[in-house]
Amino acid sequence: MADPATVKTDARRHHDPRVRGFASDNYAGTHPEILAALALANGGHQIAYGEDDYTGHLQRVMHSHFGPTAEAFPVFNGTGANVVSLQAMTDRWGAVICAESAHINVDEGGAPERVGGLKLLTVPTEDGKLTPELIDRQAYGWDDEHRAMPQVVSITQNTELGTVYTPDEIRAICEHAHGHGMKVHLDGARIANASASLDVPMRTFTNTVGVDVLSFGGTKNGAIFGEAVVVLNPEAVRAMKHLRKLSMQLASKMRFVSVQLEALLAGDLWLRNARHANAMAQRLAEGVRAVGGVEILYPVQANAVFARLPHAVSERLQKRFRFYFWDEQAGDVRWMCAFDTTEEDVDGFLLALKEELAAA
Amino acid sequence: MADPATVKTDARRHHDPRVRGFASDNYAGTHPEILAALALANGGHQIAYGEDDYTGHLQRVMHSHFGPTAEAFPVFNGTGANVVSLQAMTDRWGAVICAESAHINVDEGGAPERVGGLKLLTVPTEDGKLTPELIDRQAYGWDDEHRAMPQVVSITQNTELGTVYTPDEIRAICEHAHGHGMKVHLDGARIANASASLDVPMRTFTNTVGVDVLSFGGTKNGAIFGEAVVVLNPEAVRAMKHLRKLSMQLASKMRFVSVQLEALLAGDLWLRNARHANAMAQRLAEGVRAVGGVEILYPVQANAVFARLPHAVSERLQKRFRFYFWDEQAGDVRWMCAFDTTEEDVDGFLLALKEELAAA
Amino acid sequence: MADPATVKTDARRHHDPRVRGFASDNYAGTHPEILAALALANGGHQIAYGEDDYTGHLQRVMHSHFGPTAEAFPVFNGTGANVVSLQAMTDRWGAVICAESAHINVDEGGAPERVGGLKLLTVPTEDGKLTPELIDRQAYGWDDEHRAMPQVVSITQNTELGTVYTPDEIRAICEHAHGHGMKVHLDGARIANASASLDVPMRTFTNTVGVDVLSFGGTKNGAIFGEAVVVLNPEAVRAMKHLRKLSMQLASKMRFVSVQLEALLAGDLWLRNARHANAMAQRLAEGVRAVGGVEILYPVQANAVFARLPHAVSERLQKRFRFYFWDEQAGDVRWMCAFDTTEEDVDGFLLALKEELAAA
Amino acid sequence: MADPATVKTDARRHHDPRVRGFASDNYAGTHPEILAALALANGGHQIAYGEDDYTGHLQRVMHSHFGPTAEAFPVFNGTGANVVSLQAMTDRWGAVICAESAHINVDEGGAPERVGGLKLLTVPTEDGKLTPELIDRQAYGWDDEHRAMPQVVSITQNTELGTVYTPDEIRAICEHAHGHGMKVHLDGARIANASASLDVPMRTFTNTVGVDVLSFGGTKNGAIFGEAVVVLNPEAVRAMKHLRKLSMQLASKMRFVSVQLEALLAGDLWLRNARHANAMAQRLAEGVRAVGGVEILYPVQANAVFARLPHAVSERLQKRFRFYFWDEQAGDVRWMCAFDTTEEDVDGFLLALKEELAAA
Repeated sequence: MADPATVKTDARRHHDPRVRGFASDNYAGTHPEILAALALANGGHQIAYGEDDYTGHLQRVMHSHFGPTAEAFPVFNGTGANVVSLQAMTDRWGAVICAESAHINVDEGGAPERVGGLKLLTVPTEDGKLTPELIDRQAYGWDDEHRAMPQVVSITQNTELGTVYTPDEIRAICEHAHGHGMKVHLDGARIANASASLDVPMRTFTNTVGVDVLSFGGTKNGAIFGEAVVVLNPEAVRAMKHLRKLSMQLASKMRFVSVQLEALLAGDLWLRNARHANAMAQRLAEGVRAVGGVEILYPVQANAVFARLPHAVSERLQKRFRFYFWDEQAGDVRWMCAFDTTEEDVDGFLLALKEELAAA
Repeated sequence: MADPATVKTDARRHHDPRVRGFASDNYAGTHPEILAALALANGGHQIAYGEDDYTGHLQRVMHSHFGPTAEAFPVFNGTGANVVSLQAMTDRWGAVICAESAHINVDEGGAPERVGGLKLLTVPTEDGKLTPELIDRQAYGWDDEHRAMPQVVSITQNTELGTVYTPDEIRAICEHAHGHGMKVHLDGARIANASASLDVPMRTFTNTVGVDVLSFGGTKNGAIFGEAVVVLNPEAVRAMKHLRKLSMQLASKMRFVSVQLEALLAGDLWLRNARHANAMAQRLAEGVRAVGGVEILYPVQANAVFARLPHAVSERLQKRFRFYFWDEQAGDVRWMCAFDTTEEDVDGFLLALKEELAAA
Repeated sequence: MADPATVKTDARRHHDPRVRGFASDNYAGTHPEILAALALANGGHQIAYGEDDYTGHLQRVMHSHFGPTAEAFPVFNGTGANVVSLQAMTDRWGAVICAESAHINVDEGGAPERVGGLKLLTVPTEDGKLTPELIDRQAYGWDDEHRAMPQVVSITQNTELGTVYTPDEIRAICEHAHGHGMKVHLDGARIANASASLDVPMRTFTNTVGVDVLSFGGTKNGAIFGEAVVVLNPEAVRAMKHLRKLSMQLASKMRFVSVQLEALLAGDLWLRNARHANAMAQRLAEGVRAVGGVEILYPVQANAVFARLPHAVSERLQKRFRFYFWDEQAGDVRWMCAFDTTEEDVDGFLLALKEELAAA
Repeated sequence: MADPATVKTDARRHHDPRVRGFASDNYAGTHPEILAALALANGGHQIAYGEDDYTGHLQRVMHSHFGPTAEAFPVFNGTGANVVSLQAMTDRWGAVICAESAHINVDEGGAPERVGGLKLLTVPTEDGKLTPELIDRQAYGWDDEHRAMPQVVSITQNTELGTVYTPDEIRAICEHAHGHGMKVHLDGARIANASASLDVPMRTFTNTVGVDVLSFGGTKNGAIFGEAVVVLNPEAVRAMKHLRKLSMQLASKMRFVSVQLEALLAGDLWLRNARHANAMAQRLAEGVRAVGGVEILYPVQANAVFARLPHAVSERLQKRFRFYFWDEQAGDVRWMCAFDTTEEDVDGFLLALKEELAAA
């Protein structure tokens, strides 16, 4: 087939590809190796809806990371991965214990409740991380029909606050949950960043320590789109393919999702991207500490820096670099690094921060 | 950024790009111009979740096709487009009148009921097409709380049986539905094929004749993935962006959906692809008629040929070219052409058909 | 406690208790023995939500009818009984095969879809009765995620059209459904009328022939309210008590539901009421046939007479006795008899019918 | 019709009507005036599903309490009243702000989420009562599709912890909620107890101060079953009758629900019952304070006493009188009084408490 680089298209470029900010790893585009993979998978006919050769091969790639019982079900996005996972792990009458700050609780527009009929039993945390003790605040009442039945504990690795569970912490959660007959789901929208941060393989803090089902995230780590539910414990789910379909997460031309995940995971692209994003966040955090006058809120263990600074400073800074308030009233902001964040981006941002603080 | 054609990727090619069949337009890959568009939209940071420049520009492209009130909401897939549309057009207590053969009724795994809580009020049809008279078989009881309230008529253009409504037929449906206070949704998973078949612009059989909301399909017409709910009548929907999100159809890196739709619609790629697929279906139908011994079941007006032939012949033929039984008991099969079907593909298939019929 | 008959209440009588019609068995009040039972169960404290002594005893009463494995879960109404049953018998991805005329399809406001997320796979019938052949029109595609998975066949006994399945007919349906791995639900809103019609115990056409779960109806047969899901095959359901609660069908003072069912079923009140209503329908049908000029549409096997007569005649007749059009366009009407319908009611109605036909 | 007191029934008495405890106002039976009202409404035919004369008259009774715009929709139970109300007040994308201790959050088996698709945005409280400040912890993000949209504030009066809002407190909540474009729902499962406690009419703390929709509770205050959604502000809801039906809360023989509510509300039975239950709780609380060694946890303002005492004492006491642990780990218990609790019951309980404390 034709080389895409030489093909004329009626689409036009509408943006300046030199502009980057610190708003979100979703603001980044895709890694060139991903585009190359899409071209590779193109041409000819492949069975739709997941019986293609790329989705087939993806299973072997996943086995290399998560062992031979892992099975990947590619889906479109992270909310889809989470809600399909949680439906597959629960009954109609089930509920899910999670941190109050969990993405499924605060950032999915009520999809778990609306699409899955799932009640979330939430627990406030210090740093986005559950513990057996915190889980116990919601882990009771299984035989009481007046209470939605806790069937799953869902944790996020790394967390929405940029913190990273150690393998032992996850093991303790899994043992505790399993001891109560509950299963464990891990929202791995940024699992690669966690792996890079801990410097251990992904399996070390997932199936090795008892996680049953994983939402594997590709999009925030350089794909154009594409996540997968990775079933680590086949006994923890039922009817995955039916639930993926009725949850509207079944891609017809699935080869183009699967080949992206292959491009990330067959080699080390997933790790290179994540390590780079994490390193940029470290550089940013160190720079911020050197600047002074800004409080860093949580341990910087992945690709996010949460900080508290004067509101007016943030507002002026936002005119130069995009980023979000996390808690506008408190003056808390989130600065995210991505696979394509450069040292120059960080240094330029730090300079701007210094200037705006000085102007305050 | 790097030219994808020269970039090394850890993904490998797993299929033979020379093999094509007649199973589905979803079996085809993507058009090279689509890949080129993806590369164009890459690089730099763009606001996630739809406020990017590509999604902004897509609105102008849609206006050129559907007029200045049209608004496009890109989503992942056709089921998503349909279920988001229908939720936005109905209340919690609403129901949808559709043909028994409608994709929403038979091919979406119960997603309209499960995700949307929507009751489908179905009507058997001869050829996949509703009429005002057929609609009347379900259009009653609006004030009766014992009955789910009919609020929307949903039609498919072209239909799941490869037939195409004339603009006047759709106008009659819209007038009838609107007269009853119902809205009209058009599932346009193959709208380009219908436009090519009728040789009129898409608007001629959509907003010009009263269609309120359109599920615009890109995937079957050469995109890697990507559809859009196109709201033609802004008063027909509510809270589109909220419903898209909670239905798990909100792409974070939406630029990559929007630029594909731009690549299709800014020029004539959408029409070239559709015309070609339709022409291949005509060639196929003519060849089948010439062969004899095979009954063609519906008028071949788009890119599908439905045929009835001896079961054993179909089974032998399936060993040489992939295609599906439509009604296995009756011996009915569906042969689909795609944007990449070649004359050689068709002629080779016809030869094989002739051979297998002779061997019967 | 005080004798209710002598107790003053601030409520007043607002209706004329001598007026009866042929609109519905739901228009009737309650049998005096039911009120007496309510008084009996009153006084003192009883555990709420089903652990009371009346609900406990009800199990033994049910055993006398349906054998020792039957378990009754009292609920509020028929829609509740059906939707709780069907949820308990299906998975999140399940669908239910039923007649197009089934109450769950046409008279429950979309509750099965909306509350249960259930897709109904409907089949047109001649007389409201399914057969193995009719079931086969929807019984396929269990492994196809594009199709909602048929997991249950739901039949109504007696049917919504006043016809009654023989035990053999139900046996054939059960064997067929079970052969396909599906379960069988029987909507028994009027099961007593069916039993009276067939002159066999209820179990003869339920668990004896393979029905798995029964919606037992008390309301139409003389209770003030009260139905029960009766689980005949314990392996056919899961988590009944949780599903009843989350479906909002769990009565706090359940003793008052259970004692009504006991009043019906401990002796022969259920059968007396049903036999009487059936006999009145027979008297009505015979009278109608004698009058002439009115077509009776279905075999009159329970307490309903469906008839076709000139629209104007029906309209005049409706001014004298309440009843409903069933299909207004066709001129079809439904005349229902209840436990409290008298011979004088029937004869008066027949006289009025004769007069109005003569006046036509 | 026959006098129920003289009618023989096949039901038998299975319980000792002299035994009462302090477990729940749902453990109590019904008031004799309610049974008398049921008998009054019996006989003859009445239109089913709410067009009967009793439901018609109930509107006038409600007007006498809540003014001429109030409209009552009788339903079966409190969960039903709440979930129908909240659905009618929200869109598909809506969420509800409530106290963490709210019945809708902790005691309805996930029905709001499962049946209504509603996300509950909860706030921890000291005493079960929301305030404008507490509401603000969840009242934001209306335009953000990533967040379920807060559309309703739901409060409980009296609260699940036995505390009572003053009219001014509710007014402040309503003004705050309305100022944000949100509506206010009041779960009045025990509204009569609140009215008795405040010694003001019910309207004084509902529509007078801005409450839009009320779940009116009859069951806990002496009915056999029966609640009503009372719409105080007609603009706050849509399609009530459709939502009641599809939520499976539509009683066929509705006259028997409505006449119970009439029996409570046409005269002062509602208030007599509530005042008595409250007085018994006061007697209990005073007695407990006199005994010493038991901490009363919340102000005793209605018919509940929450107390903390040694776990072992509670366990021994439970063998003599039924009641529930509220927080077993903390040793917290709930003692409820009902309309039929006697002074002797309270005094006997206090004596037992004293004995068991002494034995500790």
